[in-house]
Formats: sequence, C-alpha cells, structure tokens
Amino acid sequence: MGRVVRKKGRRPGKQDTRETILNAAREVFAEEGYDKASIRRIAADAGVDPALVHHYFGTKEQLFQAVIQVPLDPGAVLPTVFAGDRETLPQRILRTFMDTWENPVSGQAFRALVASAATNKVSARLVREFFSRQIQRRLRTLAADHGVAESEIGLRSTLVASQMLGLAFARYIAELQPLASLPRDEVVALVAPTIERYLFGELA
Amino acid sequence: MGRVVRKKGRRPGKQDTRETILNAAREVFAEEGYDKASIRRIAADAGVDPALVHHYFGTKEQLFQAVIQVPLDPGAVLPTVFAGDRETLPQRILRTFMDTWENPVSGQAFRALVASAATNKVSARLVREFFSRQIQRRLRTLAADHGVAESEIGLRSTLVASQMLGLAFARYIAELQPLASLPRDEVVALVAPTIERYLFGELA
Repeated sequence: MGRVVRKKGRRPGKQDTRETILNAAREVFAEEGYDKASIRRIAADAGVDPALVHHYFGTKEQLFQAVIQVPLDPGAVLPTVFAGDRETLPQRILRTFMDTWENPVSGQAFRALVASAATNKVSARLVREFFSRQIQRRLRTLAADHGVAESEIGLRSTLVASQMLGLAFARYIAELQPLASLPRDEVVALVAPTIERYLFGELA
Repeated sequence: MGRVVRKKGRRPGKQDTRETILNAAREVFAEEGYDKASIRRIAADAGVDPALVHHYFGTKEQLFQAVIQVPLDPGAVLPTVFAGDRETLPQRILRTFMDTWENPVSGQAFRALVASAATNKVSARLVREFFSRQIQRRLRTLAADHGVAESEIGLRSTLVASQMLGLAFARYIAELQPLASLPRDEVVALVAPTIERYLFGELA
C-alpha cells in the first residue's frame, strides 16, 4: 500500500480560532446585547487580536449573523419585500417567509433556532437581539414609508412576528392538518388579513 | 459511624419497567398514530403484559398524555373554555392559554415540547397526534355548539393554533418587545379579533 496523502486536511488551528471567536461572540452578544457588544471585548475574551475577528467575520453585524446562523440577511430581504404597494405588502411578507421555511437549508436552520431558543436562555436572547436590531430597526424606515406611525412599529412588528412564527410552527414543524397541506396561495389568503390588521389596523 | 439505612431507595425494577413502557408507547404512537396504536402492541414491544400497562398508566389516552407530557388535560379544560357566550370565547381561549404558559411548571413543559418538536420528527408527530385527537376531535362538538360548521373546524382550529403558538413563542420564549411586557388584558384585546375571525369569520 502506498503512502496516504491527505491533500485537503482540516487545519485545526484556524478552525479552532474561528470556533473560539464564535463562542466568545455568542456569550458577549447575549450578555451585553448587540449594541453594547464590542469586537474589542469579544477579541479579548477569545484571546485574539481584534483585527483577526474582522479578518474572519467582517463587520460586527456579519459576526452576529454568523453567531445566530439565521440563513437570511434582513438588510437584503426586507427592502425588497417592502418595495411595492401597500395593499399587497401582507401577501409579500407571507410569501417571502414561507419561501424561507420551505427551502431545505434555511428551513433547517430556522428549526434549529426555534428549538434552541425554547430551551436555552442565551439563544432566546440572541433571537430577541436579532429581531430588535436587524428587523425592527430597519422597519422604522421601511414601514414608515407605508404610513405606519414610527411609535407603533415596535408593537405592530411583534404582532406580525407572533402570527408568522406560529404559522411556521403549525405548518412546518408540527404539520397540523389541514393547514400543513394547504396550497400556499390559500394560506396567504387566509392569513393576510391578520398581517394587514397588525400592520395597518386600529390597535385596541 | 452507624449503618446508613436508605429508607426511600429508588426501586430500579419498577422504574425501569415504567420507562420501558413509555419508550415503547412513544414509538408506537408516533409510528401508528393514536387511533391505530394498541396497548397490546405497546406491551409486546415493551416485553410486558398488557395488564401491567393499564396498571401503571390507566387508559390509552392517559398513557398518551404521559408520553407527550402535555401538562394540561384538554378533556377538562376545553369544555370549561367553551362554556359561556360566543362573543367572549376568543378572550377565554387566550386567557386560558396564557395562564398555562405563565404557570412555571406547565410553561416549562410546553417549552420542552416546542423544542423537541422542532428538532425531532417523533416529537413533531406526537404533537400532531395530540392536536388532532385530543383537541380537534373535541372541538367538533364544542365549536359546533357555537355555530361553527363541522366541516370547517379542522381548518379553523389550525389557524387558531397558529396564532396562539406564535403568541407563545414571541411573548414567552423569544420575549420580543414590547409584546412580552404588555399587560395580559392588552394582549387579549389585540389578538382576540384574530381568533374571532379564524373561528367565526369568512374563510377566504
């Protein structure tokens, strides 16, 4: 037998450094929140130079995305969804959301996030940070363009999130019937009025 | 030093038998569904006499409850919620649901169920069985008394479930703000019209 040459061997040092930075970042983001968390502190906790954190992960936002492993970039997706008329905005939100869950890769990542948030305080805190920093903050501009009062965007966006997360759980995780096997267009027609009311209707 | 007497020692044999029966039941319920699953088959898989299954767990329904560890008995709760006028039914549903999540013991059990359903096909199937056998089936009678067409109860109940599960996830698991810190009565007022529409409104 000849010599076995591993051409594409794992480089443990590099991999471990990435992992160490991610673990430190996870703890710092959960503990301090997104805004207060600094690359400097994360680097110090990981025992590396801040430049190395930037080298591996880019900006603080990109590092945060890597930590929570949300397979979607709200900075790219939300402006696309909100571009277009107000009348069909609820439908576009629902379709985009279902696209993400029906994609095997991103659907799997969302399931993992739901599961870890339900059992792990750190994960729950990261989901909360993601929602408030990456989604709600962007909505202040985007939804205001559609006539939603800025002071109400916080509440309205959490109500929309409550319906969408529950739709994901009922349709894609628990697969409750008949909702799970309903054609997408019928789901959109049934649920859009709820999203519409949460976005634009009277708040009790 | 005197002799150490363990007065309340664990009896491994008994405990193991219970556990063995529960594991067999979990697999059979997930594989066959609630209706087709038989105590005889579960007992055979566990290698015990069917009488022992009844001795430890009672009826098939009680065994199922023990398997999925839902800390609430729909046979007791649902008739209470549905007794009363139709106008305030959505509010009663929401209040009862929030009570269960705000109770530390049952809230914890629900979190565990959400987490395991999100990552485990067997758990997801059990949640589905629970919903269809213990909840939807009872609603056929209860909701019909409030004028809901029996043919629509399946779809209406999954839509209601989608909003309630999402409310639980947003308010109690991810704790999205400001929804998480809103007084209960405000949550009820904001979400009740959604439940009302899913129960009694036009289906698109």
